[in-house]
Amino acid sequence: MTDKWFLKPAKSIDQADLDSARSHQLQLTKPPGSLGQLEDIAISFCGWQKSLTPSCKQVQIAVFAADHGVCAQGVSAFPQQVTAQMVHNFTNGGAAISVLAKQLDAEFQVINLGLVSEIDDTDGLINTPLMAGTNDFTQHSAMSREILLAALTAGAKQLNNTAHLFIGGDMGIGNTSSASAIYSVLLKQPPELTVGPGTGVDKKGLARKRKAIYQALNRHGEQMKTPLDVLQRVGGLEIAGLVGAYIACAQTGVPILVDGFITTAAALLACQINPSVRAWMMFSHKSAEPAHTLALESLEAQPLLDLQMRLGEGSGAAIATPLIISALTLHNNMATFGGAGVSES
Amino acid sequence: MTDKWFLKPAKSIDQADLDSARSHQLQLTKPPGSLGQLEDIAISFCGWQKSLTPSCKQVQIAVFAADHGVCAQGVSAFPQQVTAQMVHNFTNGGAAISVLAKQLDAEFQVINLGLVSEIDDTDGLINTPLMAGTNDFTQHSAMSREILLAALTAGAKQLNNTAHLFIGGDMGIGNTSSASAIYSVLLKQPPELTVGPGTGVDKKGLARKRKAIYQALNRHGEQMKTPLDVLQRVGGLEIAGLVGAYIACAQTGVPILVDGFITTAAALLACQINPSVRAWMMFSHKSAEPAHTLALESLEAQPLLDLQMRLGEGSGAAIATPLIISALTLHNNMATFGGAGVSES
Repeated sequence: MTDKWFLKPAKSIDQADLDSARSHQLQLTKPPGSLGQLEDIAISFCGWQKSLTPSCKQVQIAVFAADHGVCAQGVSAFPQQVTAQMVHNFTNGGAAISVLAKQLDAEFQVINLGLVSEIDDTDGLINTPLMAGTNDFTQHSAMSREILLAALTAGAKQLNNTAHLFIGGDMGIGNTSSASAIYSVLLKQPPELTVGPGTGVDKKGLARKRKAIYQALNRHGEQMKTPLDVLQRVGGLEIAGLVGAYIACAQTGVPILVDGFITTAAALLACQINPSVRAWMMFSHKSAEPAHTLALESLEAQPLLDLQMRLGEGSGAAIATPLIISALTLHNNMATFGGAGVSES
Repeated sequence: MTDKWFLKPAKSIDQADLDSARSHQLQLTKPPGSLGQLEDIAISFCGWQKSLTPSCKQVQIAVFAADHGVCAQGVSAFPQQVTAQMVHNFTNGGAAISVLAKQLDAEFQVINLGLVSEIDDTDGLINTPLMAGTNDFTQHSAMSREILLAALTAGAKQLNNTAHLFIGGDMGIGNTSSASAIYSVLLKQPPELTVGPGTGVDKKGLARKRKAIYQALNRHGEQMKTPLDVLQRVGGLEIAGLVGAYIACAQTGVPILVDGFITTAAALLACQINPSVRAWMMFSHKSAEPAHTLALESLEAQPLLDLQMRLGEGSGAAIATPLIISALTLHNNMATFGGAGVSES
């Protein structure tokens, strides 16, 4: 990939395709607008796929995994070895996202972009660590610029260009701290508003998380002038992989279904690095992490679900995928007023 | 069916089954509670089915159709003949609920409980009208007590006792007016708060709807002492059918997924007639009709979706069904911490 490939604009969307889809929706046997957001989804897909009969049969789910040096500050409810244990659980089919990927008959990959420990190769695992977990961002930059660029490219390389929908997932003990730091910088909000309980840290852990973000903001504040700086200094390898994958999706023309708290941090970074990416994104759910709402608002995103989920892994997006399939099935198969002999209002 | 069959209590739910399900959820490889409402759904199904591996493979969708005399007051955006036209559209597979029923591989019936016009028998139609549409409730009782009881029984008879999930749908031009009148009485709210645009009536139509509800409240107010009185005087035949079906579900032990504005009016009536029914209900979505929120609150219901849908037919419940299937698939197939060798928090 060429230098600064991630700045190349997203594939264009033709207004005429959206207009045709919108007028088809108006002919279907239902009061105009009565399918709510499902109509918007179907219309968007017509634009993305340049087709009046869009489809969402091939779903790709790629879960990026990496460890976080900031765990040294006691920010997580789970020990750091859980990242590697969960990677095994993903490839063995026992994790939530594995179960959902199977249910959706989705293409499913797990990508090790930097666990602290070495793990054995296995089916379904792309075992390409870039470093043994990030550095503790309270003390150092999370990663070098070189590794950041490598992680972006590694993310982009995972994309299956023929997928109808791309879901990125995340795994990395400590990564809600990284996401909170990203939100604090990009949304200009104090850690009090961006730090939540994550996987279930207690009150003392929450205080340690906030303190770690404050330390990071003090240490890196003035040197975080661009979104790439933010990603390099307080981000994560899996978050960088997601950013690269999202940008590649938009450039290639694969719609993106963003998951939750961590992946929305990646989505926000991707849109700030390359604003044309936003037009290829849907948002699956509002996470139970309080700051997620702020992030969704800044992206003018209307998530499909609000089920108080806070698991990550891409699970919220996988749960929302049947809604998209239903939206397209309705668009493609409902009768028109004329065809069914139903009087209009 | 015996006299007052609808007062018989719902099938009991065993607390021990719920407790076992809850402790199984805590063993799955995810932070406790991180699947949000999906965990609650799975736990409820374990109680309903008395099984730690519940299933939702057989879904029954029954759409009750009938006409409304109050249409004479100009309350709807659509002409009354649309009720019968849509019944044909349901059985021909062109309506939203038909498309969704096929997608879910659901058992699907349409029940004519009282259209104004006679319609031909056809596959999938249970053609058993009780009267040619209700009377205009601004002038008369919508139906007699005898017909009300027949509609309740007709609703109950549709239930397939082996279904894992029952979805009731509604079709009846003018039926948002009936539902608004029911809400005004049961929730003790003025028509300003219970009357919405329905399928898309304009400002003048909205004023006519409000006026019709005021007329009904004035005419019937003091005689509506019980929920059965309300249903008889300002209800609809399809709404009465839904009430009967919901009560039969709870008595038989089939979980109910309530749809939107009209079906929630039926749900509220069912729960006021027989409070034990509530324990067998889930609520699929928050309708774009403003008063639906009030009704959900009064039922302490947490709907799964808020997609600004307002179509009826059972469509919101059908759209939400894959969420239930996913919740059970996760409950039944995820690995446990012990089994997967993942450390707990």
